[in-house]
Amino acid sequence: MNRDLVQLLQQVRSGAVSVEDAALQLKKEPFVDLDYAKVDLHRKVRQGAAEVIYGAGKTVEQIAGIVAALRQNGQKTVLITRLDEAKADALADVPELVYYPAARIAVVGPIPAPDGAGKVVIATGGTSDIPVAEEAALTAQVMGNEVVRLYDVGVAGMHRLLHHVDEIMSARAIVAVAGMEGALASVIGGLADCPVIAVPTSVGYGAAFGGVTALLSMLNSCASGVSVVNIDNGFGAGYLAGMINHPEGTK
Amino acid sequence: MNRDLVQLLQQVRSGAVSVEDAALQLKKEPFVDLDYAKVDLHRKVRQGAAEVIYGAGKTVEQIAGIVAALRQNGQKTVLITRLDEAKADALADVPELVYYPAARIAVVGPIPAPDGAGKVVIATGGTSDIPVAEEAALTAQVMGNEVVRLYDVGVAGMHRLLHHVDEIMSARAIVAVAGMEGALASVIGGLADCPVIAVPTSVGYGAAFGGVTALLSMLNSCASGVSVVNIDNGFGAGYLAGMINHPEGTK
Amino acid sequence: MNRDLVQLLQQVRSGAVSVEDAALQLKKEPFVDLDYAKVDLHRKVRQGAAEVIYGAGKTVEQIAGIVAALRQNGQKTVLITRLDEAKADALADVPELVYYPAARIAVVGPIPAPDGAGKVVIATGGTSDIPVAEEAALTAQVMGNEVVRLYDVGVAGMHRLLHHVDEIMSARAIVAVAGMEGALASVIGGLADCPVIAVPTSVGYGAAFGGVTALLSMLNSCASGVSVVNIDNGFGAGYLAGMINHPEGTK
Amino acid sequence: MNRDLVQLLQQVRSGAVSVEDAALQLKKEPFVDLDYAKVDLHRKVRQGAAEVIYGAGKTVEQIAGIVAALRQNGQKTVLITRLDEAKADALADVPELVYYPAARIAVVGPIPAPDGAGKVVIATGGTSDIPVAEEAALTAQVMGNEVVRLYDVGVAGMHRLLHHVDEIMSARAIVAVAGMEGALASVIGGLADCPVIAVPTSVGYGAAFGGVTALLSMLNSCASGVSVVNIDNGFGAGYLAGMINHPEGTK
Amino acid sequence: MNRDLVQLLQQVRSGAVSVEDAALQLKKEPFVDLDYAKVDLHRKVRQGAAEVIYGAGKTVEQIAGIVAALRQNGQKTVLITRLDEAKADALADVPELVYYPAARIAVVGPIPAPDGAGKVVIATGGTSDIPVAEEAALTAQVMGNEVVRLYDVGVAGMHRLLHHVDEIMSARAIVAVAGMEGALASVIGGLADCPVIAVPTSVGYGAAFGGVTALLSMLNSCASGVSVVNIDNGFGAGYLAGMINHPEGTK
Amino acid sequence: MNRDLVQLLQQVRSGAVSVEDAALQLKKEPFVDLDYAKVDLHRKVRQGAAEVIYGAGKTVEQIAGIVAALRQNGQKTVLITRLDEAKADALADVPELVYYPAARIAVVGPIPAPDGAGKVVIATGGTSDIPVAEEAALTAQVMGNEVVRLYDVGVAGMHRLLHHVDEIMSARAIVAVAGMEGALASVIGGLADCPVIAVPTSVGYGAAFGGVTALLSMLNSCASGVSVVNIDNGFGAGYLAGMINHPEGTK
Amino acid sequence: MNRDLVQLLQQVRSGAVSVEDAALQLKKEPFVDLDYAKVDLHRKVRQGAAEVIYGAGKTVEQIAGIVAALRQNGQKTVLITRLDEAKADALADVPELVYYPAARIAVVGPIPAPDGAGKVVIATGGTSDIPVAEEAALTAQVMGNEVVRLYDVGVAGMHRLLHHVDEIMSARAIVAVAGMEGALASVIGGLADCPVIAVPTSVGYGAAFGGVTALLSMLNSCASGVSVVNIDNGFGAGYLAGMINHPEGTK
Amino acid sequence: MNRDLVQLLQQVRSGAVSVEDAALQLKKEPFVDLDYAKVDLHRKVRQGAAEVIYGAGKTVEQIAGIVAALRQNGQKTVLITRLDEAKADALADVPELVYYPAARIAVVGPIPAPDGAGKVVIATGGTSDIPVAEEAALTAQVMGNEVVRLYDVGVAGMHRLLHHVDEIMSARAIVAVAGMEGALASVIGGLADCPVIAVPTSVGYGAAFGGVTALLSMLNSCASGVSVVNIDNGFGAGYLAGMINHPEGTK
Repeated sequence: MNRDLVQLLQQVRSGAVSVEDAALQLKKEPFVDLDYAKVDLHRKVRQGAAEVIYGAGKTVEQIAGIVAALRQNGQKTVLITRLDEAKADALADVPELVYYPAARIAVVGPIPAPDGAGKVVIATGGTSDIPVAEEAALTAQVMGNEVVRLYDVGVAGMHRLLHHVDEIMSARAIVAVAGMEGALASVIGGLADCPVIAVPTSVGYGAAFGGVTALLSMLNSCASGVSVVNIDNGFGAGYLAGMINHPEGTK
Repeated sequence: MNRDLVQLLQQVRSGAVSVEDAALQLKKEPFVDLDYAKVDLHRKVRQGAAEVIYGAGKTVEQIAGIVAALRQNGQKTVLITRLDEAKADALADVPELVYYPAARIAVVGPIPAPDGAGKVVIATGGTSDIPVAEEAALTAQVMGNEVVRLYDVGVAGMHRLLHHVDEIMSARAIVAVAGMEGALASVIGGLADCPVIAVPTSVGYGAAFGGVTALLSMLNSCASGVSVVNIDNGFGAGYLAGMINHPEGTK
Repeated sequence: MNRDLVQLLQQVRSGAVSVEDAALQLKKEPFVDLDYAKVDLHRKVRQGAAEVIYGAGKTVEQIAGIVAALRQNGQKTVLITRLDEAKADALADVPELVYYPAARIAVVGPIPAPDGAGKVVIATGGTSDIPVAEEAALTAQVMGNEVVRLYDVGVAGMHRLLHHVDEIMSARAIVAVAGMEGALASVIGGLADCPVIAVPTSVGYGAAFGGVTALLSMLNSCASGVSVVNIDNGFGAGYLAGMINHPEGTK
Repeated sequence: MNRDLVQLLQQVRSGAVSVEDAALQLKKEPFVDLDYAKVDLHRKVRQGAAEVIYGAGKTVEQIAGIVAALRQNGQKTVLITRLDEAKADALADVPELVYYPAARIAVVGPIPAPDGAGKVVIATGGTSDIPVAEEAALTAQVMGNEVVRLYDVGVAGMHRLLHHVDEIMSARAIVAVAGMEGALASVIGGLADCPVIAVPTSVGYGAAFGGVTALLSMLNSCASGVSVVNIDNGFGAGYLAGMINHPEGTK
Repeated sequence: MNRDLVQLLQQVRSGAVSVEDAALQLKKEPFVDLDYAKVDLHRKVRQGAAEVIYGAGKTVEQIAGIVAALRQNGQKTVLITRLDEAKADALADVPELVYYPAARIAVVGPIPAPDGAGKVVIATGGTSDIPVAEEAALTAQVMGNEVVRLYDVGVAGMHRLLHHVDEIMSARAIVAVAGMEGALASVIGGLADCPVIAVPTSVGYGAAFGGVTALLSMLNSCASGVSVVNIDNGFGAGYLAGMINHPEGTK
Repeated sequence: MNRDLVQLLQQVRSGAVSVEDAALQLKKEPFVDLDYAKVDLHRKVRQGAAEVIYGAGKTVEQIAGIVAALRQNGQKTVLITRLDEAKADALADVPELVYYPAARIAVVGPIPAPDGAGKVVIATGGTSDIPVAEEAALTAQVMGNEVVRLYDVGVAGMHRLLHHVDEIMSARAIVAVAGMEGALASVIGGLADCPVIAVPTSVGYGAAFGGVTALLSMLNSCASGVSVVNIDNGFGAGYLAGMINHPEGTK
Repeated sequence: MNRDLVQLLQQVRSGAVSVEDAALQLKKEPFVDLDYAKVDLHRKVRQGAAEVIYGAGKTVEQIAGIVAALRQNGQKTVLITRLDEAKADALADVPELVYYPAARIAVVGPIPAPDGAGKVVIATGGTSDIPVAEEAALTAQVMGNEVVRLYDVGVAGMHRLLHHVDEIMSARAIVAVAGMEGALASVIGGLADCPVIAVPTSVGYGAAFGGVTALLSMLNSCASGVSVVNIDNGFGAGYLAGMINHPEGTK
Repeated sequence: MNRDLVQLLQQVRSGAVSVEDAALQLKKEPFVDLDYAKVDLHRKVRQGAAEVIYGAGKTVEQIAGIVAALRQNGQKTVLITRLDEAKADALADVPELVYYPAARIAVVGPIPAPDGAGKVVIATGGTSDIPVAEEAALTAQVMGNEVVRLYDVGVAGMHRLLHHVDEIMSARAIVAVAGMEGALASVIGGLADCPVIAVPTSVGYGAAFGGVTALLSMLNSCASGVSVVNIDNGFGAGYLAGMINHPEGTK
């Protein structure tokens, strides 16, 4: 931003840009105002990376409008999260849109080839955690990451997890997805030597409190290198894992 | 109780006991009324088993009074829990009283020889959980159990726990004591094939919430055979483990 | 496990097993990987005991697949918990499957004859707690226990409970199922001399908070020998009670 | 109030009171403004009944000032609750003040002879609940009630409570004081046929949450006729029990 | 109970009752065991008073069975609370059953003429609180009380409440029903000199937390003589108010 | 009120009003009693200002009745909040009623021309917060305020907010509407020099806890001049903002 | 800010300011960097208004350093909140510093003459709420407001509040300070026609939960025009009330 | 681990290691058993990296013992966190120990030269958050990271943060430390394009709930790339940031 600022001021100096225009330009932000949404065109993390739309709480019309604005402004791939099946059906006409029902995700445009430093492992405690894990996996893939899925490796049958200790030891980032008591994050954190992003899920009943128990458990992990995102926030974990797997990508 | 009732009624029939005496006897309960406490003399789980006084919230005088009442009524061993050091000092004159500061427990009278069916394992996640574990261990010992202590075997360094898999596999009952995220209970529950009594501790900070996180985590354990007692309730866990280790003891 | 390990190493020594095969075998775990689930074949608590599938959050296809994998690997009886009526209907073709709607449980294969040390008593505070109690009762029965049902014996009409004091006094393990204020566990705990497993239920309204009040109440029981499982976790309580009733069963 | 109003207006009519004086009088309230407190002189429930000062959060000077204002305005007896020992010492010069340390209550002036319809029973679950019970008992006595104390009759040893079933059956109002799981209120509520006022206490540890568990438990009592006051609010319960025991007293 | 006991023992003495029969009779409790429910026939608060069935969580068949058992045993009036409209329709054949949809209450048999000491006032903060208030009102009426309804007198428009100060001042017991911030209980408590039973309702949104805010507010009422029942527990409040209005009724 | 009181008393003095009539008049309040509601006619904030009906929890008949009572008593405009679409349809016959579905608001009668001191800015963090913002906006408009809408200016893309710094700097009152972490209120509070009314919304998932996180976040705002209303309470915020924008309006 | 920006750019154009200097100036913010604090010199709400230091969590040296930085940069009056007595003593040498122990506030420099549009009323429910109220009162006074104090006017004795209805009716802004059930805010909100800022206090015990109950109660106020600040946040309420009382002051 | 395993098995094959020794070795774990602690010697993240001791809940003797065990086993640097000043004094004799009181950290041995990929930025919202930030900063430094400290840049004065946008844009990992409403994490997350680790602190009062509000706020951050650790867990955040800044370090 500073480089742009100096350049702009030099143009003011040289008279190439008028004072009024410069003031205007400093105020003009790189977003499209759709009235119901101010679409951010600024966040091109890397050339070709996906822009993200949070689908919950937006109408089909709003989502379609934002996709169109992004595509018109040169965005190759658009990721739509928390998109229920009914909305996905209503968006069937959007070109290049592919819907992944398990993950409740739609991808508009191509999924790029993996270009990260290594692999992202996504593990779940049980079968019921898979939808959240898929949200993380697809997000990471859309960001250009190779993903290894380890599903149903919860701590009640430890041998299932130990069976995959190689994948865990060689990952660049791990997403640990678990509900109920969320112990998976601690156990993986104790085995791995890369960052572990813990995703509590709302799987469970009674004193699982819709994921609060897993959330608290993960926040208190006795293993180092573990951090936590919101309950069921597969997207956030996949995004962060992909970011860690692209250590040069953001410089 | 029914046997006693029929016997009493037969004595009424035979005239050996008057109606008034029988009514009185039916009302007379086997406790000593100390005004501030009604001391239960009825609960002789087995010949020689210890009676228990919860020391917190009682004055030194009250504790001494209850001990005296119990001893006068033939109780061999009395266990006093939650007894802080100051009160223990003030009770130094009580005959046969031995104080265990780490466990905040005093035992009045002899600790019986182990006569349970097997061993009770008491494991902790960390060093800070040891006081609660000692409360459990001493309680079980006073109830006639052989105790195996496995301290600082938390899941962040899984190999420490796996090192003791033999003790875990051969226990009759296991007490799993852990604070923070409390994952120890689930991991032990997945390894053991005996009842696991989980004791959440108030060890931790921030979102550990004084043991609530460990409590919730343990209640949601994905392993079967795990049940939970109150936060820091070493006594309750030790008592229950001892009970399970005496399957014939209570018949 | 250690016995197996020594044996394996001896086979390596003798050349009966190659180094590569041994390394493989040490890694090969006794589970079937169904992609969406890693089915545990290892947990044959005793010859003929039931394996358990948690039905909630699994599709009909997943459940059927796991049942098939278990049966093919020699499991006589399979217990499916938290199975709603619609899924049970869809599983009607599974051979030997019997569905118990009140308990939301299906049993595939025979229920074994009771072979425990004594009886398991299952008591409820009210009529509305019966479904959770039935989940516990059927689980215990599938594990080979004789079950005594004492339903609607809540503390508001104490005489109903006292009427059954004989059953309570002679049990090997008691499951106390109650919602609202959950006082039943304490009262039974004060009467019984065997382990009492308290199951809070989500029965009640307002400040019952879906079972949280009963859960907290039970965790704070002033009676010794009481431990607690998750809200509505009839399975866990029945399983644990059955385990306690088979003191030799797991050695 | 209406009687006074009509009378005042008649005096305006007759000229005995000027319009300005009447307007003033209607605004003039029966309280003494001490700047830091507006002392209510209006609430003379009955001739001779005690006025109450909540001692916590008030300085010694403020308490002394309010006592003086009340006595000067004809109040015979003044009750000061939540008065710690240090403040009580500092108030030693106040005439007729008697301090009850267990209840943290001071009474200024005579305790009236009992004139209620029957007896108020005050029961506690354990020894540690006695201070709250004494606050209730003294409050009721100062309001002219005969009080029966049943201390340490918790449900873990049911026979202790059943031993006193006569007192419970014949009470006009019962105050049930208990911490931990608070089951005492339900059990007494199931035995008694008069109003039961439940007082949760902060006795307990861990998941007792400073009385919250007992509070929730009591609010969910399955027994009819039970209502609840704030945690440790012995005063409120004693006051209400005394009110119920004086059914004609307030008409 | 004691009178009966002495009499029974005298009959044993005289031979009028055999020892076996006496033991049996002491165990035989006055309830009908319907398998799913143990119907209490013992609780005849007064001649003709209503017995109560909590309708939620019971099937139509269970309710009908309990009503029949009660009527056959001489109960004149039966109150069924928390009865939704569908169940009420299904019970249409039950003789003498009248359903009150606003209160979700059915009354089987006659509503007795009022015979209390005075009037019970039932006040609500708003229009939405009326269903809970009607549950309280009908319960009190069925127990033989005259009820005065003061609806929509919340504190935001204080004059509406002050308009009815006469009714409040002359009541024997007041039920204050309010959601949201629940201030009504405190304001009425400050005006009245009889017991005030506060009923928090689940009316409100957001930080009303389904009645928790009103519940907490009422528990902290700065007015004396206020006690609280569970959220939306109109029955409990009406029952207790009726009990207070019959000070001689239970002796 | 005092002015009226003196006048009334003077009329009593002069005999123009009888004592009985005066007493009556003092008791007669300016509301219409509709049995289910006591409609306040007293609150005419200013000539022509709107009266408000909270639509949730009221039947269509009740709402129509209250509207009629208000209109008959001279109220020009009536605002109905929390009115779902079904009820709005059922009220279609009410003259001059216009329904705003996004805001769930109906306005009966004209919306007055803006006459406030300046502008009220209403900002949202995201698109999903718009319904609550519209409730605030319409409420403010009905109260005679000019409203500036700044939607989807959340802190994740700070430039969108900074783009509108002029509107924020020149507002008389700002309503900041946000869910999730609710940081918008703090950031606006740090930029603005007028009162900021923060409205947490129930937008979000998991640990958003239905708006509780945003509520807590806003209550802890490190910016001065920020106060908070209930979750989703657009009405309350719009009303208060309008009040602040009419500093002379209430004198 | 825009005015400054255009001016700066014009100076760049004219060569009066170099491009490098302009870039620097745009980055140079009006604060003093004290390493441990970045002291804001920008926020001179009006000529002469006070700058504020939050004293809690800062050392005496830090506070003294910030005061010095502010005074050197022309700030006339500095307000230090949450300053305990020990720190105030240690700051005794700071020139012009006056400490108010009840409010835990120090004012450095003169308190300006009131210049607001009207009066700010500050009311408390009880005597114990006075410290928080004084924090609000002094803050408002330092901001140039005339303050009316109404202390101990809680709703349990409604006449005390009604006695001061004139002050309430004529205020420009009211701060309602109350603990326990916090009903004061609703009652004042129902009487007043100006903004009411509710301050929950941590006064109370048990289910008052350190002010949470009062907070929730105030957030749910059924009266319009009420908003809420954090528990015990007298400063925030006094600041906001003063802002509302200076409707022209910030333009 | 697998490499070691194959090697071991080959040695068994060749007879270089006996079967018994191999079984033993497979069980022998690389930790020192100090009875009260099982000291992990296995976790040498990289040559020379620091081993960590959590000082809270350990005695001085225990800490000294663990340090000695680590040093004797070749650990160059040992980090001791949560070490209060009294314990630090008692450990003064430990060679090479340096204590940092603000961070409550002791470092035994040399702090290594930075060898990470870039810089770690550590920012705080206020002055009171500095202790937690220092714990993070020292942890990262001990792990070989260059640390940039940005303290007191909270969102209430946004320009302070924007002033440092260069440091934020060029970081490899950012630790955002804030209490109260915790908005700092979202604002930094919106500006940065590297992982942001949010640390809620217990700074604040009232509804800050000891850091819970900041924790929840950060979990709900609307910015991507933000994850959260436990309240006040500076160590965890610094450790994770250092790990991210060493993307090759752990392979």
